[in-house]
Amino acid sequence: MIIDCHGHYTTAPKALETWRNRQVASLGNPGQAPKASELRISDDELRESIEQNQLRLMRERGLDLTIFSPRASFMAHHIGDFGVSSTWAGICNELCYRVSRLFPDNFVPAAMLPQSPGVDPATCIPELVKCVEQYGNVAINLNPDPSGGHWNSPPLSDRIWYPIYEKMVEYDIPAMIHVSTSCNPSFHTTGAHYLNADTTAFMQCLTSDLFRDFPTLRFVIPHGGGAVPYHWGRFRGLAQELKKPLLKDHLLHNIYFDTCVYHQPGIDLLTGVIPVRNILFASEMIGAVRGIDPETGHNFDDTKRYIEAAHVDPEERRMIYEGNARRVYPRLNAVLQAQGR
Amino acid sequence: MIIDCHGHYTTAPKALETWRNRQVASLGNPGQAPKASELRISDDELRESIEQNQLRLMRERGLDLTIFSPRASFMAHHIGDFGVSSTWAGICNELCYRVSRLFPDNFVPAAMLPQSPGVDPATCIPELVKCVEQYGNVAINLNPDPSGGHWNSPPLSDRIWYPIYEKMVEYDIPAMIHVSTSCNPSFHTTGAHYLNADTTAFMQCLTSDLFRDFPTLRFVIPHGGGAVPYHWGRFRGLAQELKKPLLKDHLLHNIYFDTCVYHQPGIDLLTGVIPVRNILFASEMIGAVRGIDPETGHNFDDTKRYIEAAHVDPEERRMIYEGNARRVYPRLNAVLQAQGR
Repeated sequence: MIIDCHGHYTTAPKALETWRNRQVASLGNPGQAPKASELRISDDELRESIEQNQLRLMRERGLDLTIFSPRASFMAHHIGDFGVSSTWAGICNELCYRVSRLFPDNFVPAAMLPQSPGVDPATCIPELVKCVEQYGNVAINLNPDPSGGHWNSPPLSDRIWYPIYEKMVEYDIPAMIHVSTSCNPSFHTTGAHYLNADTTAFMQCLTSDLFRDFPTLRFVIPHGGGAVPYHWGRFRGLAQELKKPLLKDHLLHNIYFDTCVYHQPGIDLLTGVIPVRNILFASEMIGAVRGIDPETGHNFDDTKRYIEAAHVDPEERRMIYEGNARRVYPRLNAVLQAQGR
Repeated sequence: MIIDCHGHYTTAPKALETWRNRQVASLGNPGQAPKASELRISDDELRESIEQNQLRLMRERGLDLTIFSPRASFMAHHIGDFGVSSTWAGICNELCYRVSRLFPDNFVPAAMLPQSPGVDPATCIPELVKCVEQYGNVAINLNPDPSGGHWNSPPLSDRIWYPIYEKMVEYDIPAMIHVSTSCNPSFHTTGAHYLNADTTAFMQCLTSDLFRDFPTLRFVIPHGGGAVPYHWGRFRGLAQELKKPLLKDHLLHNIYFDTCVYHQPGIDLLTGVIPVRNILFASEMIGAVRGIDPETGHNFDDTKRYIEAAHVDPEERRMIYEGNARRVYPRLNAVLQAQGR
């Protein structure tokens, strides 16, 4: 079985974007804001948007199941206030939930949170609770920079984030650390901001003792961990300078990297440097890089091909595809077991 | 001959830091600012600080020459105004120049600029001119984020930077794109901010047509290019989405990566993915990662060992060590030729 732990609903029917544009246009005039109930997307429309896109490619590539969350670049937590984010997160999470009900064998939901710059992250807990308890979400996406590239939130080790972590520990769910669109012209969203956030989040964990406070807290760092595996020696050396334990003891009980690295040499480095038990298969399909690599003739984001060609033995490959995800996402494992899988 | 294109004067005599602390303490009371002439460091002190540190390690490791610039983390362009940066840059550049005169066979200077947040980069030109014409500097360090982690300058493709580029082209000198200390608590300086800046700068070039305006402009992206080589497939794919030429045509006539990657797998990826002609030997010694790697028994930053073990043929290795640097830094080549090297 192949589990893709990193998929976003990037192909939602156009009505979603139209609704969002109306919401954004109403900023400053809340009376003109559209109601959530004004968005109407039928099950057939949802089915079509998935069957022709993600599910088609999953079948072509031989992927069984995707952990499916709202489109990352559309979270745009920097737009509006908590109320705006809250309505938007509610809508997006409901759509992913509905997709998971329409395709229970193929999609399991993960939630975005209604974060808003300068607002206490604890305000996100009701949405988180709803998504886990009512929608069966098995994880959350946590944005370490809801400002969209201005980086004015405290680091992930700050106690301001602890209410989220306490709830994650209680539910035994991991968080993928995933930023959204950059509204800072310095940072291209998918070419700089995403990768920078991955590296930044890892280093925030490295310099802190966050996982001493939360020994069972689990973060998935996407996009192959940003710059981290490529600079693993640098990070090992910095940890040593900072008198921290070896990274395998300090961070690797709690931090996992996905395989959204879009060429063979990158995946070879990832699987060569990072312990296999910390690597989770993912493609972020359909996402930032949709084209065909002229050097291979295959889609850049067809990451299964790289894992197939990586120097790992069959049992290790099974861990990357399935075993690690079952361990890191226990609620996913419970869903699968209930399905007899 | 082995040329290290990335060394900073991290071991300057204590008097330098003391002077800087006085300057910082006087912010808001310019009348109390120390004069540049109040800093007195003798040639013997300079000699000792180099002979016992960088030069000792260069000899141990078999490195011949270092392109030597002021300590990157101490540039701290975010502190004070242009006047403060200007005095500070003048002092630091003079020290590197003096080191280069004391050890002409081993150190060739590169300049820091008196950048200041929100100040027109053109104000840096007099210092640049002095450093090239009077001090024999062969390159500059250009900080894409003089705010120290707030990233509120225009991207490197913006015309605000063009006066610097025009001067670089006139002098035929490259710039290493190097940020300084992060004053943003989100970003650890050497573990996040440096690597993020490398990735960010590359992507700013990728999304723009900067090198169409300046076909001979050359940027050295340090720390092995941040996350770029590890995600080379992602960047190739993003360039394709953006209808840009192949990266080898779009950027690799103008962008070079150094070898400050502190473990063998990282260097293997770098040399496997990036054309050898775009790779410049460097160690950033003595820098952020000073310890000994318990996995190898050697210093993390002893990057020559990784290049020796990399899968490149002898001619390619010579290019990484020397040939590429002579081409990318023509004024260095001229110095060497004048020395009969």
